[in-house]
Amino acid sequence: MAKNFADKLLEAVKKKGTPICVGLDPNFEKLPKFLKEKAFQQSDKSPMSCAVDAILEFNKGIIDAVADIVPVVKPQIAYYEIFGHNGIWCYEETLKYAKSKGLLTIADAKRNDIGSTASAYAQAFLGEVAFGEGEAEIIIPGFDADAVTVNPYLGWDGIKPFIEEARKYEKGIFVLVKTSNPSSLDLQDLQMKDGSFIYEIMGGLTDSWGATEIGEGGYSLVGAVVGATHPVQAKRLRMLMPNTIFLVPGYGSQGGTAEDVKVCFDKDGLGAIVNNSRGINYAFEKMPEFGENGYAEAARKATLAMKEDLARVL
Amino acid sequence: MAKNFADKLLEAVKKKGTPICVGLDPNFEKLPKFLKEKAFQQSDKSPMSCAVDAILEFNKGIIDAVADIVPVVKPQIAYYEIFGHNGIWCYEETLKYAKSKGLLTIADAKRNDIGSTASAYAQAFLGEVAFGEGEAEIIIPGFDADAVTVNPYLGWDGIKPFIEEARKYEKGIFVLVKTSNPSSLDLQDLQMKDGSFIYEIMGGLTDSWGATEIGEGGYSLVGAVVGATHPVQAKRLRMLMPNTIFLVPGYGSQGGTAEDVKVCFDKDGLGAIVNNSRGINYAFEKMPEFGENGYAEAARKATLAMKEDLARVL
Repeated sequence: MAKNFADKLLEAVKKKGTPICVGLDPNFEKLPKFLKEKAFQQSDKSPMSCAVDAILEFNKGIIDAVADIVPVVKPQIAYYEIFGHNGIWCYEETLKYAKSKGLLTIADAKRNDIGSTASAYAQAFLGEVAFGEGEAEIIIPGFDADAVTVNPYLGWDGIKPFIEEARKYEKGIFVLVKTSNPSSLDLQDLQMKDGSFIYEIMGGLTDSWGATEIGEGGYSLVGAVVGATHPVQAKRLRMLMPNTIFLVPGYGSQGGTAEDVKVCFDKDGLGAIVNNSRGINYAFEKMPEFGENGYAEAARKATLAMKEDLARVL
Repeated sequence: MAKNFADKLLEAVKKKGTPICVGLDPNFEKLPKFLKEKAFQQSDKSPMSCAVDAILEFNKGIIDAVADIVPVVKPQIAYYEIFGHNGIWCYEETLKYAKSKGLLTIADAKRNDIGSTASAYAQAFLGEVAFGEGEAEIIIPGFDADAVTVNPYLGWDGIKPFIEEARKYEKGIFVLVKTSNPSSLDLQDLQMKDGSFIYEIMGGLTDSWGATEIGEGGYSLVGAVVGATHPVQAKRLRMLMPNTIFLVPGYGSQGGTAEDVKVCFDKDGLGAIVNNSRGINYAFEKMPEFGENGYAEAARKATLAMKEDLARVL
């Protein structure tokens, strides 16, 4: 067994002493005014370009504030894609900056497609593309995230290319199994003839897809997304998926508590990371003592409070 | 009932006399050499920027060759995302160019997320984002595609924001129901207690999600992706989803024939569009009489042959 993404992630969790993943989901409307005003003073740039500059500076502030206390960040690409190619530039820069600060990165993209197309996504997010040979060779670096979230609706051949790229570059994936939103029950909680639920079947599939990709610490490079908002299902999945790291969204703003996420961890208090986006990004809204200008300090304080909250139950 | 995206699409199909959708899935390795050489002569540009210039010129050639004979094109965003923000610029330019030639556009992105994030994707692909008010208002235009493909694994609240944006801008969505790939059976063909299959349940849900969005022609702005490679399932879905337009991938390179796609249409020979990507994009590989330099003419000839092939059965 070689060292894999799961080992890197668990090492980082141990080093920082907390399994917190900070989501970077920048909503332009909610950014501190001073950042927007500063960005829009650049008269040589288009409004779109100014807007993403404000977002990038916001992200850097959050990253600087939490880099020494958390192991991993997770920028949600939808909030960047809304700004077209300018937004994707900002996404690339955000990933690079987080990496430069020693953080692992998860691209929350929920990508999926048939095999040949899934390969293109896998290269885009985790790997690289090389064209030509010798002196004429061109390397396209890709987003170079440490992991990417993927949707399993298309089955194995849409997942396989992601695992292949991940293996090649010591990276990982997180397969959506039981998502944190209320409507996740529409499909995921349907019950089969034998009494099992779709989320259990997808959990079992995900665990089996990762069975050949287990690292030194006993965890696979194939992880699973399991929402904090569904603790009963999460508990069941933890039993069904002994080799799978859980990425747990839904803590905080979506209603998940520390007690709820406890069941996602193994007996050593490992095997899961807990994401918080809005509760950290916009902590300043609920901490008037910092104000908008102190958004980064507020984010740090919120992260430390979450660390304590999780430590209480782990 | 007001006119909706389905009406626009069916009008375009009738006007062109064929339900062909041309996929624009540019694989850089497979592009004609003369296009790559020309692009890489631009010494002032980065290799990545030269590469996407070659792709854009390739796409324009295909679009020019088919614009008068087909109603709609479908660029697959994975093949652009692989080039990062340069690739997304190329995606935007491809959509704009197709629109300028009178074509409808489907962004094949298979996007999905929880409600709040799905809203950001919906705005990115179909709508626009406005910040501020009055003179300070900034409008971010988005990709402005006529429709986008979406993945239903997260259920209704991940689909609803796309429908809301689509309604606002006379646009549409296509929900993945039964995909064309072999592994689609992993989840989609699981059988429930009452004997029904997951693809049938998702088909029923998709039809119900579109029930309030029906246009003058009897079809909803909520369409479905149903693969040509599964004619038995497609026939069943056509019965279950009377108000849903099918986007049918898998014809040609993936093995689907005209006979296979026939079941996707209604009694008037409408209600579906059939996609072909590789068989048209790289038609020149199988038509030595055109050569690489004649890739666009080869694409036109392949499209006309497909039109005849489909007309035979409709």
